[in-house]
Amino acid sequence: MGKIQPEELQGVAFQIILESGDGRGMIHQAFTLMREAKFAEADAKLEMAKDTIIKAHGTHADLLQKYASGINFDIDILMVHAQDHLMTTLMLKEIAIEMLHLYKKVG
Amino acid sequence: MGKIQPEELQGVAFQIILESGDGRGMIHQAFTLMREAKFAEADAKLEMAKDTIIKAHGTHADLLQKYASGINFDIDILMVHAQDHLMTTLMLKEIAIEMLHLYKKVG
Amino acid sequence: MGKIQPEELQGVAFQIILESGDGRGMIHQAFTLMREAKFAEADAKLEMAKDTIIKAHGTHADLLQKYASGINFDIDILMVHAQDHLMTTLMLKEIAIEMLHLYKKVG
Repeated sequence: MGKIQPEELQGVAFQIILESGDGRGMIHQAFTLMREAKFAEADAKLEMAKDTIIKAHGTHADLLQKYASGINFDIDILMVHAQDHLMTTLMLKEIAIEMLHLYKKVG
Repeated sequence: MGKIQPEELQGVAFQIILESGDGRGMIHQAFTLMREAKFAEADAKLEMAKDTIIKAHGTHADLLQKYASGINFDIDILMVHAQDHLMTTLMLKEIAIEMLHLYKKVG
Repeated sequence: MGKIQPEELQGVAFQIILESGDGRGMIHQAFTLMREAKFAEADAKLEMAKDTIIKAHGTHADLLQKYASGINFDIDILMVHAQDHLMTTLMLKEIAIEMLHLYKKVG
């Protein structure tokens, strides 16, 4: 079935961290825009964040797919950290969308 | 001490993912109800989510208990992913409760 | 390069869980203060939480540093759980800061 080597896995982990980090930065820009009541711009920024997070999600999904197909690899602390970055950023995006609704409501 | 086999561990991971996913779906339904100012229904939906997440939490706690008692198993990417699902869903529930307070305040 | 033994790693994991848990408790105290419109006190509590989370973050960063320097260790379920505690608490703090802004806006 083959095995992914640690060096290759580290590359994937760093890619997930970088892509998630880009998305997270955009979400925080969206929060700043919400505070300034620039709701259309906040919307647009969250859409950009969404596209970026989809990339990180795809990178992670590829790895899960390899796991499911029987390709073996050892989980190290960096890969755990990468998955945490991705999943907390996904969550932050969901919450940012709800907060934008609330911001629009209070004007 | 015994050892949990990968196939059994995968089953536990999928259970945690499914139960967390059910809870997460209910939380998003609660967010929709908040947007519509249906606060009592949002409250009820969050209570349902809480009960569902407790199941996922219990499944995870059982595994931690086995670990603590010396039963051995290798962590794979799916189990990391399952724990991320559980912990981010727990967090989302805590935030949904706070957002419901804020929604009620602004009416 | 050396290797960190499981017992030592468990100690680090518990430290991260405890420090993150302290921070998380302070964030929830801040949420309670927000609900009571005690915004200056909520601000102060979030600052305290920030300092506590920095400790947990430092404990985790030390471990990542060891990993980067080639020191080897096996990831177990407790260390995954510890990282989840840290990362979801960091996320909760970011959201609490945004919610405090919104609370101040609605008064």
